[in-house]
Amino acid sequence: MRDAPSPAGADWFACLGEACREINRRLCTMDRAERTRQFGRGAGGDTTVGVDRVAEDILIDALRRRYEETGDPVTLVSEEAGLMHVGGPGGPVVIADPIDGSRNAARGAPLFATSIAVSDDRTMGGVRYALVFDHGPKEVFTAERGVGAWLDGACLGTPERPDRLRMLAVEGASAARIAAAALTLVGEVGRLRSLGSMALSMCWIAAGRMDALLGLGEVRAVDVAAAQLVLREVGCWVGLPEAEDVDDCPLDVVVRRRVMATAQPDLIDKMRRALGEAAAVSW
Amino acid sequence: MRDAPSPAGADWFACLGEACREINRRLCTMDRAERTRQFGRGAGGDTTVGVDRVAEDILIDALRRRYEETGDPVTLVSEEAGLMHVGGPGGPVVIADPIDGSRNAARGAPLFATSIAVSDDRTMGGVRYALVFDHGPKEVFTAERGVGAWLDGACLGTPERPDRLRMLAVEGASAARIAAAALTLVGEVGRLRSLGSMALSMCWIAAGRMDALLGLGEVRAVDVAAAQLVLREVGCWVGLPEAEDVDDCPLDVVVRRRVMATAQPDLIDKMRRALGEAAAVSW
Repeated sequence: MRDAPSPAGADWFACLGEACREINRRLCTMDRAERTRQFGRGAGGDTTVGVDRVAEDILIDALRRRYEETGDPVTLVSEEAGLMHVGGPGGPVVIADPIDGSRNAARGAPLFATSIAVSDDRTMGGVRYALVFDHGPKEVFTAERGVGAWLDGACLGTPERPDRLRMLAVEGASAARIAAAALTLVGEVGRLRSLGSMALSMCWIAAGRMDALLGLGEVRAVDVAAAQLVLREVGCWVGLPEAEDVDDCPLDVVVRRRVMATAQPDLIDKMRRALGEAAAVSW
Repeated sequence: MRDAPSPAGADWFACLGEACREINRRLCTMDRAERTRQFGRGAGGDTTVGVDRVAEDILIDALRRRYEETGDPVTLVSEEAGLMHVGGPGGPVVIADPIDGSRNAARGAPLFATSIAVSDDRTMGGVRYALVFDHGPKEVFTAERGVGAWLDGACLGTPERPDRLRMLAVEGASAARIAAAALTLVGEVGRLRSLGSMALSMCWIAAGRMDALLGLGEVRAVDVAAAQLVLREVGCWVGLPEAEDVDDCPLDVVVRRRVMATAQPDLIDKMRRALGEAAAVSW
């Protein structure tokens, strides 16, 4: 693990980080009616609300400006817009969830992120650069494949491996799913957390703040493309839902997978059982 | 509801807010070993760790400086130190949880608060001023009894009353308790959230960010003294566990109660059932 990203990585992080700060400034000026205004369904199938639309537009503008400066096209795959060429076909694939945690963001709760990955191709294994911006404390997680991961520019080491699940993050926490999963984990878990942001739950595990994530609902590649690289660069285990499913996962807004992540691979069997119970309930 | 606190309230909020910002600056300089260092059990019965100790010391210093400037003594009731006179006996009662969300804070997760209330006497009904500082986004919730509640100085209105529990916060979320509570809420709740900070969960309901809180474990007065005033000043329902139990609740670190809060009192019966199920499990 090196102290700093490559020059190309640093360029991408500067460009994407500035877009995230612009999104943050713009969201602060929006009232509840603007944040929650509905725009129909996005390409990913969820209802697009004001915060999603505004954030995606700012990201698209940032990629257009980058094309005008460098002449390098990119292919954007985004939660709301789906697939879009910026500056023509080809170039790296930028896969983004402009607002991860839209329910929190729409209601003004400062617990949501912007998640952006840059990939060599249309697969998860091709992701080379990752940036997750936490709009509450304005922290920036970044990672470069084979180089390392950073929090606000400081190198993230491998988190300690606990002997039990002191703190477990769950996402997609409907009452039925969480009841089914929690029943299998009685006596195995210290505390459950449910933040409502997949990217933050994953990055917080990479930073040693929680021990594992159980994604009780199905997620798309846009939700995990950036954070999975942050986790893998610090030596954490990530599965979709198995580790061998990650690299081949297509970068689109269609495929839905269950996700697990942990700093402690010895705990995966317990998590698998809990996920199986949650998957068996219909809502 | 008025636009601004009284001059006396504004003085308290300036003093307490500055102490919170000092706590925030100091915590940023602590590494994990310092944050998690154990100091035995505090007066409230929980293990005191480095973040709790540092935050309480800064608050005590702030109250001592205030005494030196004004000559007014205060009685402090705090999570770690228990009861302490500053400048002699008498004066208002300051009841504080220096770090609400210690598990998050100790591991570096920016999801914890400092919670401070100033009361005319040793009962919850006597609380006159309240301040909750969110150390992630650095938001400040304040309230003055009979005057109003504010977020970063902007008046908080009454949150909308949803027809269902779109977002329910749970605290004290062990696997057994959350499984028991969630089973009774299947089909009744959109999403569960578990932040790990009682004061933030309560203040976020006051701000319309979540619809209700179910405290699955028992809490002490220090945990809720400030946030209950923020909620009540915006017209929300708070129970310990019933509304008629709130005013007489003693301000100490001994009594333990279950807590519920909601912007929508029509939903209380459902929450009562869920709390009853959670209370019936032993861990």
